[in-house]
Amino acid sequence: MKDNKVQIFDTTLRDGEQVPGCKLDTQQKLEIAARLDTLGVDIIEAGFPVSSPGDFTSVSEIAKLVKNATVCGLTRAVQKDIEVAADALKHAVKPRIHTGIGTSDSHIKYKFNSSRDEVIERAKQAVAYAKNYVDDVEFYAEDAGRTDNAFLAKVCEEVIKSGATVLNIPDTTGYCLPSEYGEKIKYLKDNVRGIENVILSCHCHNDLGLATANSIAGVVNGARQIECTINGIGERAGNTALEEVVMILKQHPYLDLHTNINTQLLYDTSLMVREKMGMPVQPNKAIVGANAFAHSSGIHQDGVIKNRSTYEIINPEEVGVTESAIVLTARSGRAALAYRAKKIGYELTKVQLDKAYQTFLQFADRQKEVIDEDIHVIMKQINKISKIAIA
Amino acid sequence: MKDNKVQIFDTTLRDGEQVPGCKLDTQQKLEIAARLDTLGVDIIEAGFPVSSPGDFTSVSEIAKLVKNATVCGLTRAVQKDIEVAADALKHAVKPRIHTGIGTSDSHIKYKFNSSRDEVIERAKQAVAYAKNYVDDVEFYAEDAGRTDNAFLAKVCEEVIKSGATVLNIPDTTGYCLPSEYGEKIKYLKDNVRGIENVILSCHCHNDLGLATANSIAGVVNGARQIECTINGIGERAGNTALEEVVMILKQHPYLDLHTNINTQLLYDTSLMVREKMGMPVQPNKAIVGANAFAHSSGIHQDGVIKNRSTYEIINPEEVGVTESAIVLTARSGRAALAYRAKKIGYELTKVQLDKAYQTFLQFADRQKEVIDEDIHVIMKQINKISKIAIA
Repeated sequence: MKDNKVQIFDTTLRDGEQVPGCKLDTQQKLEIAARLDTLGVDIIEAGFPVSSPGDFTSVSEIAKLVKNATVCGLTRAVQKDIEVAADALKHAVKPRIHTGIGTSDSHIKYKFNSSRDEVIERAKQAVAYAKNYVDDVEFYAEDAGRTDNAFLAKVCEEVIKSGATVLNIPDTTGYCLPSEYGEKIKYLKDNVRGIENVILSCHCHNDLGLATANSIAGVVNGARQIECTINGIGERAGNTALEEVVMILKQHPYLDLHTNINTQLLYDTSLMVREKMGMPVQPNKAIVGANAFAHSSGIHQDGVIKNRSTYEIINPEEVGVTESAIVLTARSGRAALAYRAKKIGYELTKVQLDKAYQTFLQFADRQKEVIDEDIHVIMKQINKISKIAIA
Repeated sequence: MKDNKVQIFDTTLRDGEQVPGCKLDTQQKLEIAARLDTLGVDIIEAGFPVSSPGDFTSVSEIAKLVKNATVCGLTRAVQKDIEVAADALKHAVKPRIHTGIGTSDSHIKYKFNSSRDEVIERAKQAVAYAKNYVDDVEFYAEDAGRTDNAFLAKVCEEVIKSGATVLNIPDTTGYCLPSEYGEKIKYLKDNVRGIENVILSCHCHNDLGLATANSIAGVVNGARQIECTINGIGERAGNTALEEVVMILKQHPYLDLHTNINTQLLYDTSLMVREKMGMPVQPNKAIVGANAFAHSSGIHQDGVIKNRSTYEIINPEEVGVTESAIVLTARSGRAALAYRAKKIGYELTKVQLDKAYQTFLQFADRQKEVIDEDIHVIMKQINKISKIAIA
C-alpha cells in the first residue's frame, strides 16, 4: 500500500445503523453493502454479530456477497463475541475482526470498575484470541479522545505485539478539537514502538460538529484510515460523513492524500441510504444536501452566472449532482431573473428587465420562491413582451 | 471589552434567510430577532436593506425593536446600498453597517472585471462613506479564504485607515482547512498595522463540513467575532452553526474564550427557527438534532446508565433539552431493557431479565424501535411477572 493512500472504512451498517429509527433488514443491508463495494470503500463494517441473531445473519450474508472490500465485524473484548464474529465472517474474501475496550479513566472506572493494568491485559488477550481466526485484527481504544496519551501509547504498543494490524483511536464522545486530535495521532506515531507496521485509524463523533475536521487532522498527522458513514449518520450526533472527508482530500491536492472512492456515486449513495434508513438529510448538509449547490442570493447568482468558480469550489457533477440550481427569491438580482427568463423563452432588453424586476420583487416579497409560472405571469403584466423561441 | 470575549454575530435573518424556502415575513423576523436578543447574541444582522422593500421594512422594524444587541445591515460597496442601510438602521440603539467587496483574484477578474488597485479604492470609499452615517462599520473582504494573504493584509490596513471597526474575513466558498484559515487570521494579526484597534471576524461556509472548525481556528488565532446562524442554515451548505461554536468554547475552558450566550435557550431557539423557516434539522445534527443526546446501542446505554459522563460530554439540560432519551433497538443490551422496564413498573430478577431479553430481541429484529407497549407485551409473554407500583 502506498503511503499516501487513505483507507475508507465505512460503518454505515454498524455505527450508522445503531440509531433510533435506522434499523434495516438483511436484504436492505445487502443492497447497501453492494453499493458501498461499488463506491470503492476499502472496508465495510457490516455489524456487531453477537448483538442479535438478525445482525449475525446480516454480517454473514454480506461476507458472502462482497467481492472487493474487506468485511469487518465488531466485538467487545470478550471471547464469545470474537467467536461469533469469526463465524459470521468465515465466508468473507477479506475478513477483519474489530475488537477493543475502553481506555479512558472514565470508562475504566465507571464502565468496567477495573484498573489500567487489567484493561491492558484484556486488550492483549482479545487481539491474540481474534488472531486465531483472522490475520486482520483491528483494535479500538474506546474513548481514546479522553485517554491520557502516555497510557494510550502503552496500550497501542501492547496490542501491536499481540498482532493488531490496525489501531482505531476513537473520539467516542466527540470532545476533541482538531488540534488536540491531530496531536494525539502525532504522539502515537512518535512514541509507539512498531507503529510503522500498522495503520492508525480515525473514528470521530460529531457531538460538537468537529468529526470531519478531526478526521482530517488525523490523516494529516499520520493516520491512514478514516471510519465514517454515508450522510454522517450514527450514534447521537453521528459519525464523520464519508462524503465530506473524501471531497476535502480531493479538493486539497497539496495534501497528497488519496482515496479509492468513485465520487460520482456519492449523491446516489446518499439518496439510497436516506431512503432505506428513513433518516432525512437536512437541505444545508455539505456535499449531499438539497441546497448544497443551490445559489439564491442576488450577489451569488450574479457571480455564478458570470463564472461558476466565484462561489462554487466543487463541480456538482463530480459528486453526481447533475445541475446546480438557481432558485429565485427576494434576494435574487436582475442577472438571475434575466438568466431564468431566457431559459424559459424571454429575451429582455435592459428597460424591460428593469420593469420586470420591480414586478418580480413584489412577487418575491409575497412568496418564498418565484417559479417559472410566476415569470410567465410577470411577463404578461409588464406587457406583451414577445415570446422568443426556446433554444 | 475583555480580550477573551468572543462576539457572536448572528446572521440567521440575512445569510440564513437568503436560502430557497426560508423566506420570512416582517412579523416572523421580529419574533426571531427578539429571541436572538434574549439569547444573548452581540450583533444581529437583520437583512440586506437595498435588496427589496420587504427587507428594508424588516431591518427598520428590527432596529426599533432590539434593545441589547447591535443591529447590522448588509450592503455592497455601493453608495446607494449604504444610504438605504443607514436609513433602515436610523432608529437602532447600536447600528452597524456591514459593507465590502470581493478581494480574491477570481472575484476581481470574473465578478468585477476590475483590478486590485481599483478594488482597494472602492473598499476605502465604501467604508468612509458608511462612516458618515454610523460609527460602527464592518468591512467584509469577500472570498478572503481564496485571497492572497499579502494583498488581503493591504486591503485590511487601508480600510482600518478609512475607519472600519470590524474586519470580516469570509471563507465564502467553504474551501479552507482549519489550519489554513487559522494561519490566515494569524497572518493578519501579525502583519496589519492598526489591527490591535479592530476586531477580526470569522465568517465561514460549510461546503466541505468545516465551517465550525474553521471558526474555532479563527478565534484561537486571534479573531474575536464569529458570524453564524441558528442550525447552521445559509447559502448552499450553510454557515457556521451558532450552537456548535458556543458549546465548543463552553466545553473547552482551557481556551479561555467566552461568549454571552445563555445556552439553556439554544434548543428552543433552534425549534423556533426550524418551524418559522420550514427548514428541517436532521436527527444527527450536533447539539440540536433529535438524536443528539439519544443513546441506542447496548454498549453505550449500559455506560450511560452507569455514569452519564462515559458517553455524554454535555449535560442536555445545559442546552435546554430536558432528558437524554434511551431508545430501545436491536442494538440495545440487557441493562437498557432493565432500565426501561423498571421505569414502566417491572423490577426483574436476573433470570427474568435473561428470558425477557430473548423475547425482546425477536421484537427488535422485526421493528426499528421497541416502545413501552411492546415491553408490556413481552412481560406478559414471559409469564406473569407481577407489576410493581411506579415510583
